[in-house]
Amino acid sequence: MPKIVNADDRRELVADAVFEVIAERGLTQASLRTVAAQAGLALGSVRHYFDNQAELMEFAFRVNSERIHLRALDTLELLEQEELPAKRNDLLEKCAVVLEELLPLDEARRADAVVHMEFMLDARTNAGLLDAAQDDYRATGAVVGRVLLALMDSPLAVPGMVPVDEAERLIALLDGLSLRMVLQPAWAAPEQGRATLRRHLASLLMA
Amino acid sequence: MPKIVNADDRRELVADAVFEVIAERGLTQASLRTVAAQAGLALGSVRHYFDNQAELMEFAFRVNSERIHLRALDTLELLEQEELPAKRNDLLEKCAVVLEELLPLDEARRADAVVHMEFMLDARTNAGLLDAAQDDYRATGAVVGRVLLALMDSPLAVPGMVPVDEAERLIALLDGLSLRMVLQPAWAAPEQGRATLRRHLASLLMA
Repeated sequence: MPKIVNADDRRELVADAVFEVIAERGLTQASLRTVAAQAGLALGSVRHYFDNQAELMEFAFRVNSERIHLRALDTLELLEQEELPAKRNDLLEKCAVVLEELLPLDEARRADAVVHMEFMLDARTNAGLLDAAQDDYRATGAVVGRVLLALMDSPLAVPGMVPVDEAERLIALLDGLSLRMVLQPAWAAPEQGRATLRRHLASLLMA
Repeated sequence: MPKIVNADDRRELVADAVFEVIAERGLTQASLRTVAAQAGLALGSVRHYFDNQAELMEFAFRVNSERIHLRALDTLELLEQEELPAKRNDLLEKCAVVLEELLPLDEARRADAVVHMEFMLDARTNAGLLDAAQDDYRATGAVVGRVLLALMDSPLAVPGMVPVDEAERLIALLDGLSLRMVLQPAWAAPEQGRATLRRHLASLLMA
């Protein structure tokens, strides 16, 4: 009986090998050959699923982006489906946990964030990643926008805020926190990132 | 009479060639050979000033970091030497122009920011750049910290702010704005970056 291999599972397995190579050695080392070796597969077997390195990279970027955003969307649905907390601290906490899914606060999220940053930067000079990068920006914008709209729905929100302006500021804050936590883990610890995010959200609510 | 070549000038000229190669093709392409070709120099001539690629990269990172921070320090001295503006808008503007030196708001600053981002990310897996990266973080922290201390000296400042907390939030905001403006120039325009920075500073002053 032939071994049954699910094509989607195999492609995800190869994507995981891409992430491992990027995390340890950087994106430039993620050739089909290195990735195959990391996955414990023959080169021909990887070629069966991906015609070339560019196709593999775009797929891996999309898997990475989806993992990050799906995690945030899961907690976002909890925020949107239930009634908004009436207490300032509960509301702040509920918004914070959604946005924290976008920050490298533990090993799993840190691994995702490192890979994400490498792909984002590579997309600057790599036209093959541009579409995936735009989709990624949109996904982040959607999560942040929905959190802010929920927060602004509360009577606790500082009056007169413009959603798109606050989204821009919050996206910059999250990107900047991620960047420092990824690049400089000794100085930018998870507790600091958590605290800075909460202080920012607190500034959007009345004292 | 032999041609007189100033060693420091020559090293800066080579660094400029590094920046051009990085801006166009990414940091991974910045070999001694590519950089020599870009500078219009013989490979041996570049080797006269830099023993190897690692030494060239650290030098170029330090030149890049210094250019960015010296520009900010020049405007910062104007802020510190004169009396603090008594009008809210004047104070905001004076703080903003210092911090804007850290953002890619025109072609010169954009070129510096692109190169800066590539070096910062490379320092994650490149031990030879770690010291330069730490010095860079300190330099940014010093500029942002001094702007905040000046702002908090004003009776217009929101009372009760903690300088180190606000510095962390402001550094994240600036990093995040830079990142988006570098990676996604079509969506993140200079006017938006300027406006977001000013809105953030405005939130630190009383209405």
